[in-house]
Amino acid sequence: MNKLVNSIREAIALSGLQDGMTVSFHHHLRNGDHVLNMVMHEIAELGIRDLTVNASSLFDVHMPLVDHIQNGVVSCVLADYISAGLGKAFSSGIMEKPVQFRTHGGRPCDIASGKTPIDVAFIAAPTSDTMGNCSGKYGKSACGSLGYAFADAMYAKRVVVITDNLVPYPLADFSIAENYVDYVVQVDAIGDPRGIVSGTTKITRDPVGLVMAQYAAKVIDASGLLKDGFSFQTGAGGASLAAAKFLKDIMLKKEIQGSFGLGGITGYMVDMLKAGCFRTLLDVQCFDLGAVESIRTNPAHREISALQYASPGSKSAAVDSLDVVILGATEIDTDFNVNVHTDSQGCIMGGSGGHSDTSAGAKLSMIIAPMFRARLPIVTDRVTCISTPGKDVDVLVTQGGIAVNPAKAELKNRLLDAGLPVIDIADLKEKTERITGKPQKLAHGDQVVAEVISRNGDILDKIYSVC
Amino acid sequence: MNKLVNSIREAIALSGLQDGMTVSFHHHLRNGDHVLNMVMHEIAELGIRDLTVNASSLFDVHMPLVDHIQNGVVSCVLADYISAGLGKAFSSGIMEKPVQFRTHGGRPCDIASGKTPIDVAFIAAPTSDTMGNCSGKYGKSACGSLGYAFADAMYAKRVVVITDNLVPYPLADFSIAENYVDYVVQVDAIGDPRGIVSGTTKITRDPVGLVMAQYAAKVIDASGLLKDGFSFQTGAGGASLAAAKFLKDIMLKKEIQGSFGLGGITGYMVDMLKAGCFRTLLDVQCFDLGAVESIRTNPAHREISALQYASPGSKSAAVDSLDVVILGATEIDTDFNVNVHTDSQGCIMGGSGGHSDTSAGAKLSMIIAPMFRARLPIVTDRVTCISTPGKDVDVLVTQGGIAVNPAKAELKNRLLDAGLPVIDIADLKEKTERITGKPQKLAHGDQVVAEVISRNGDILDKIYSVC
Repeated sequence: MNKLVNSIREAIALSGLQDGMTVSFHHHLRNGDHVLNMVMHEIAELGIRDLTVNASSLFDVHMPLVDHIQNGVVSCVLADYISAGLGKAFSSGIMEKPVQFRTHGGRPCDIASGKTPIDVAFIAAPTSDTMGNCSGKYGKSACGSLGYAFADAMYAKRVVVITDNLVPYPLADFSIAENYVDYVVQVDAIGDPRGIVSGTTKITRDPVGLVMAQYAAKVIDASGLLKDGFSFQTGAGGASLAAAKFLKDIMLKKEIQGSFGLGGITGYMVDMLKAGCFRTLLDVQCFDLGAVESIRTNPAHREISALQYASPGSKSAAVDSLDVVILGATEIDTDFNVNVHTDSQGCIMGGSGGHSDTSAGAKLSMIIAPMFRARLPIVTDRVTCISTPGKDVDVLVTQGGIAVNPAKAELKNRLLDAGLPVIDIADLKEKTERITGKPQKLAHGDQVVAEVISRNGDILDKIYSVC
Repeated sequence: MNKLVNSIREAIALSGLQDGMTVSFHHHLRNGDHVLNMVMHEIAELGIRDLTVNASSLFDVHMPLVDHIQNGVVSCVLADYISAGLGKAFSSGIMEKPVQFRTHGGRPCDIASGKTPIDVAFIAAPTSDTMGNCSGKYGKSACGSLGYAFADAMYAKRVVVITDNLVPYPLADFSIAENYVDYVVQVDAIGDPRGIVSGTTKITRDPVGLVMAQYAAKVIDASGLLKDGFSFQTGAGGASLAAAKFLKDIMLKKEIQGSFGLGGITGYMVDMLKAGCFRTLLDVQCFDLGAVESIRTNPAHREISALQYASPGSKSAAVDSLDVVILGATEIDTDFNVNVHTDSQGCIMGGSGGHSDTSAGAKLSMIIAPMFRARLPIVTDRVTCISTPGKDVDVLVTQGGIAVNPAKAELKNRLLDAGLPVIDIADLKEKTERITGKPQKLAHGDQVVAEVISRNGDILDKIYSVC
């Protein structure tokens, strides 16, 4: 048995890929990924058309996808996140079928259940042996965790591993096992390391960001959740990291040992692990070199699949045990619905990723965002797009006050008792509009360019073309 | 969400187990296992009847199963191996439906494909956290790998983890992930450590065994397979271990670095890993404390699932990359068919385990066995039961000569060139019978007590009741 094939084109041909089928990709190489473009180029050259692309996320490096859509090679796109440049193209209405946005938990759930079957999965693997045992931890294109690729590998009819670091069989520290892999292709480079992970993620120096971060840490401290066994997820944004820094200071001072840090992992979370703030990191994606180094060397830093991270179809997922998550927003409305899909023009520039999943799972779901950006208030009457429903969002932290979801009366009282500047979200909206003025209502086109599918499988909202 | 339940009985009730369903068990606790008996006792107390028990293996500690069969609680048994005491009961014809014997690869294959669905899987877990992330590496009942339990956990409708070492969430070094687990039960003891793993496995001191072991190592040396990248599996029997010892000496002398050791792993294979004979151990089951210690601490010693070990339904399995396997036999016939299911009386006393899987996968499948045991010749005209078909068996090593499958002419020439005592298998049979006399043909009863299902899913042979 020999799984090694000479080229991506040969692997595509052997996979039996035909018009109308579905191909899938994972996004651990982020804006450094070469694999999606290389594969789609070969597919186009082979004359295969009308494909569905199921990608855990799409980045601006994937702009060639626009040509494939316009040429009829791709007719449907599923993704959890689409970055701004590519998002703008989708928002202009290049595709008849709306993009299907899922969450990082909803995607593997629907793959596992058979709702969104994959014909051929392409796994970008920083290291693979000749039978397809592969890992993201080693090699020049190392990205750390391959968490989002597990469901693709386990449930796709055919699985092609593409690697730029082929090693002898067996790779002992495999993430995805050979029993799922059909073909292995060696290429010169699966990605550009500069785009795969950032060197180090840095905390904000912006005074507004630091105020919000201080508030965020104090909210957590006052919530009653910060005790031994505490668990935490935060993003890689500057203010989120600053919040983690302040939280770390509190935890060290109070000698609190948390149980786990979760999610996309940064070097900052690794520092918290090393400092004893957590026993464990559960890692579905590494954001920087510090995280990659840690997951490779520290047994307490463990790779998990997206099924284990966040799938609502799993018997449990790590998000279900999460105490606190800090999340961002481009808009939040007075019902606490959050938008992370579109920008102020209504253009696609993001997606839920794990936003809805962690919001639903965590005991305390906190949004931190400035009161306004470029004179546009963060709080609106109604978000342009519901990414995460307000019922799952507990608190909004801004530099101008902290708004608590009315459903969380106990939390509100705790924050008041701690002397934190709690403000009604409607008052926060008015307070902001006194600075920014009332924004004009956004007009949109008639075409539905994307559907936002909730982690339960319902259509949560629709995104329209921009005028 | 809380998966912790107070008792095995409560877990059974919550699982929805009903008459006619299938329950499953894995055998890593071997003859020290308490879990199967505890669970079946509660099932019987609850009055549930007509169950199918799908166990990766059954040991004499599971004798209470006989009562459950006689009382109608259990009406069908699937297993890969049944030890002699329990085997005797099955051979006496206690059950209307024949036992279905599968291989260690065929079992997870049929579970994954849905051919043998499991309603409720019971996982004996030496360590588990409160959400069911569990491992065999830690705790007073540590058994090392949980390789045979993965398919059960992944494909059963309901999964109950039973542990005697409950740890806080999350267990970073989990083997089976929480997303597969419905309920967790804490008990005093899942097993008796004395029966779970032996202290140390020892090489034989028997002169006949040592001769066979020397021959076995020389056959491997002469086969052309012993070079850098060499891979190897052997059993835990004294002669097999002695063969590994002699092989190790050759490998060290010739400075050959193998790629991997496979299978049920002993401390002796661990020594070979440490000595540099292999880069890696791929471990589906630990046989002794040395193996348990190694899999817990050495990243080069890696747990694999039975799907990855040996499933014929996997896109590849480790057995497909195996160079040499050393196996045993209770009988082998002149067509090289091997029996490891029944003893000289035709009584069930074993099973294929990984015998057929590794024989089919390995480039060189070697049986080592003495010419006779208790005056019964090893070579017969026709084995009482075909466990592994002769087409997959390459060579038989006895103290009286080495018989090569006629389909392997090149191997035969290599052994002759090396000056090894090659003998035609028919001649070996005659040579043996000159010592032992010709054995009487065994009569058997009319009842089919077991069917041996090949790794391809065909019925390879039937085992009849004993007279």
